[in-house]
Amino acid sequence: MAKSKFEYVRNFEEDDCCLPNCYIIIRIDGKNFHRFSDEHAFQKPNDERALMLMNAAACTVIKDFKPEILMGYGQSDEYSFVFKKSTSIYKRRKFKLLTNVLSLFSSAYVFHWKSHFPHTKMKYPPSFDGRVVLYPSLENLRDYMSWRQADCHINNLYNTVFWALVLKGGLVPREAQERLRGTVSSDKHEILFSEFAINYNNEPELFRKGSVIYPQCSGGSESWNLKVFGQAALFVIS
Amino acid sequence: MAKSKFEYVRNFEEDDCCLPNCYIIIRIDGKNFHRFSDEHAFQKPNDERALMLMNAAACTVIKDFKPEILMGYGQSDEYSFVFKKSTSIYKRRKFKLLTNVLSLFSSAYVFHWKSHFPHTKMKYPPSFDGRVVLYPSLENLRDYMSWRQADCHINNLYNTVFWALVLKGGLVPREAQERLRGTVSSDKHEILFSEFAINYNNEPELFRKGSVIYPQCSGGSESWNLKVFGQAALFVIS
Amino acid sequence: MAKSKFEYVRNFEEDDCCLPNCYIIIRIDGKNFHRFSDEHAFQKPNDERALMLMNAAACTVIKDFKPEILMGYGQSDEYSFVFKKSTSIYKRRKFKLLTNVLSLFSSAYVFHWKSHFPHTKMKYPPSFDGRVVLYPSLENLRDYMSWRQADCHINNLYNTVFWALVLKGGLVPREAQERLRGTVSSDKHEILFSEFAINYNNEPELFRKGSVIYPQCSGGSESWNLKVFGQAALFVIS
Amino acid sequence: MAKSKFEYVRNFEEDDCCLPNCYIIIRIDGKNFHRFSDEHAFQKPNDERALMLMNAAACTVIKDFKPEILMGYGQSDEYSFVFKKSTSIYKRRKFKLLTNVLSLFSSAYVFHWKSHFPHTKMKYPPSFDGRVVLYPSLENLRDYMSWRQADCHINNLYNTVFWALVLKGGLVPREAQERLRGTVSSDKHEILFSEFAINYNNEPELFRKGSVIYPQCSGGSESWNLKVFGQAALFVIS
Repeated sequence: MAKSKFEYVRNFEEDDCCLPNCYIIIRIDGKNFHRFSDEHAFQKPNDERALMLMNAAACTVIKDFKPEILMGYGQSDEYSFVFKKSTSIYKRRKFKLLTNVLSLFSSAYVFHWKSHFPHTKMKYPPSFDGRVVLYPSLENLRDYMSWRQADCHINNLYNTVFWALVLKGGLVPREAQERLRGTVSSDKHEILFSEFAINYNNEPELFRKGSVIYPQCSGGSESWNLKVFGQAALFVIS
Repeated sequence: MAKSKFEYVRNFEEDDCCLPNCYIIIRIDGKNFHRFSDEHAFQKPNDERALMLMNAAACTVIKDFKPEILMGYGQSDEYSFVFKKSTSIYKRRKFKLLTNVLSLFSSAYVFHWKSHFPHTKMKYPPSFDGRVVLYPSLENLRDYMSWRQADCHINNLYNTVFWALVLKGGLVPREAQERLRGTVSSDKHEILFSEFAINYNNEPELFRKGSVIYPQCSGGSESWNLKVFGQAALFVIS
Repeated sequence: MAKSKFEYVRNFEEDDCCLPNCYIIIRIDGKNFHRFSDEHAFQKPNDERALMLMNAAACTVIKDFKPEILMGYGQSDEYSFVFKKSTSIYKRRKFKLLTNVLSLFSSAYVFHWKSHFPHTKMKYPPSFDGRVVLYPSLENLRDYMSWRQADCHINNLYNTVFWALVLKGGLVPREAQERLRGTVSSDKHEILFSEFAINYNNEPELFRKGSVIYPQCSGGSESWNLKVFGQAALFVIS
Repeated sequence: MAKSKFEYVRNFEEDDCCLPNCYIIIRIDGKNFHRFSDEHAFQKPNDERALMLMNAAACTVIKDFKPEILMGYGQSDEYSFVFKKSTSIYKRRKFKLLTNVLSLFSSAYVFHWKSHFPHTKMKYPPSFDGRVVLYPSLENLRDYMSWRQADCHINNLYNTVFWALVLKGGLVPREAQERLRGTVSSDKHEILFSEFAINYNNEPELFRKGSVIYPQCSGGSESWNLKVFGQAALFVIS
């Protein structure tokens, strides 16, 4: 029968398993979201609707993979999902895990669009890339989260000043860029405060720190928490 | 500065490149589409709208990756994309390639839904898994395509008889299954012909053979061809 | 110049790095040592000279890779080497690590042969295969060692009874095999004790438990310890 | 029983298979052979005994893996072995293949030492590293061989002039290095010819082109050919 003759081509497939006893992180990043946010007129420097849409897509993923996912952390157009060290889902096959999470996130993003952007028609389907990273220890995992949160902080501080200079200060983008070249963190705080009366520390935590989602059961019904990510948050991971 | 302290966690990432001088195939499969097609009342044994939606999502991918993709082949809830042997897109990084194709396909599927199912609300976002396979020779590639097409043929013949027995013959699914146990290809043709006056070879090629998409330029404007897949089709690949 | 034209072939090479923050174990196994030990008339069930030759080859490896190797454990024709979690030798490149350890072990085995078998000419060069395994936690590492030691124990107990039955009891190998079929550990102890007056627990630890080697400095000069492996031994690993 | 409790640690092992339908090349390189050749007083710029010892070790490997190995190519302290595209030895497991070839080569090198250096005691065991590379097409394979042969040519031409300047011209190594800085191929030929009356093209092919070994059967008995590698040689590979 015809099938058997060709089926040898399956042998060209490979399947790597994730090393046991490691946390498995899947991180998703928007592809070319600079353009996507421009085309859909996202607010600058942060569009709360867009961040909450990322959170909604992440919740779809976390619910679907419950109870294997310990937490999700999102900022800007990226999201990280942390699977239990002991998870045996898909036999820990790297490609299975990555592609199922990524695909569901992508389709959920489009699916939930209308709830978050009721007055904006999506012009074209966005896409994300993804990767799998393994961390053997809780310390490594916390450093990973700290790294992403530091990234959030640095970018958000820059963007907050940049867009203040442009939108309120009347500079063109190139001028704002010039103005910020070489400034350190305290310079940026100072510009915000003295020129725009903005105390950066009073900006919403959602913007400054990103979002964290834990799957939790409370009482009889199941509820999903969306919390701002603080230094202490990771301690709840067992 | 804080970033440098944590950034070591990047070293846990790996990135495999695809062996040069091999065709790169990315195959996408619907996850749990049995349920998805039931919930959205897909017609049995084939729903032309659903197949054309798969084709639309595939076209979005092929346009986006033009001219690196040689062709796409789809059947049922799966799609295969063939990248040129010589492609250097994303430096041939396996995860980058796979995740970008898969994510775009997934979001395009949801994005194009309304055009193909104008009267059916999507109940939940679907997902797909994906894999990368390398083939060193054109012969291997053709055998791969033949394998997928044989799969299409076998499943579609079975489903055509099965649903004829159920929808027209009045059997319940279990009875239809029983009836078909142990039958070979010619038996199934015979049942279709003698009991339901269906000549299987007259069924639409879209159902029997699947869809193939080539990126092509004709004249000044660009047109996209959707063709039924025939034995000779692969010869046009250079 | 000619070189540049062909050098693209380097791009077909891959190099995987070992995940950081994991113990790296390299295990070496004799290939077809049943034949090798027969051809060179190794004593049964254990040949102390052969075991000490394995230890000598292992010492050559450990000295060469000092201080990156924490310990070595050997039994029968296999040896395991444990590299520090934090080692950055060869940038943790898997193939570099594996092949350098394996090659040195193999050539050292032949090099030291004459010191351990002064009256036996080596008939042909032996070979070993090797593998790399990563363990994220000390608990995993200890379980690995326990697994190999349990393997040593089980095989050695079996071989000790088997060869007592053959060499002292006058059975042919097939009869000895039959006699042992289905026996458990306590049966084997009993056979040894009642029929051959051998208390298995008094057999040399080298045979029953294998060899462990730690690199150590004591006083001004460097000394190399060869110890029998006990349950507590692993605790010294920091 | 104790074994089962610990055996889970096996799941940390991985095994990559080589992509089917590709040539598998295993290349072995001497580690720190500069020192090894100094300590054992190898002749400069080439020591025929050392090259023939490499060939002897390679023959041991090729005989052992016959008929899976198509050819071997050696130059200086490196050797490449080409396995058939269709080989299924060790199920094409990368680590198995690599480690068995490498280990046998290493122990054979020490084993055959005395036949090639009857008057030189080996001072310490040498080691080699190894790698696996896959090539999908015959063209890639030939380019690989051309690349290695070009490497042989370039290094040997340089070394021939360098050691002529030192051994016959009375320069110290640093002076010879200076003299050669910036010279191209024709300059080096000219120095050899005008100052030392050496026509480089008359140097032994073994030095200029390296060694190639094909496994061959001729007549009833099996003979092993050692040939100098020429441009046409690769055509005999089917």
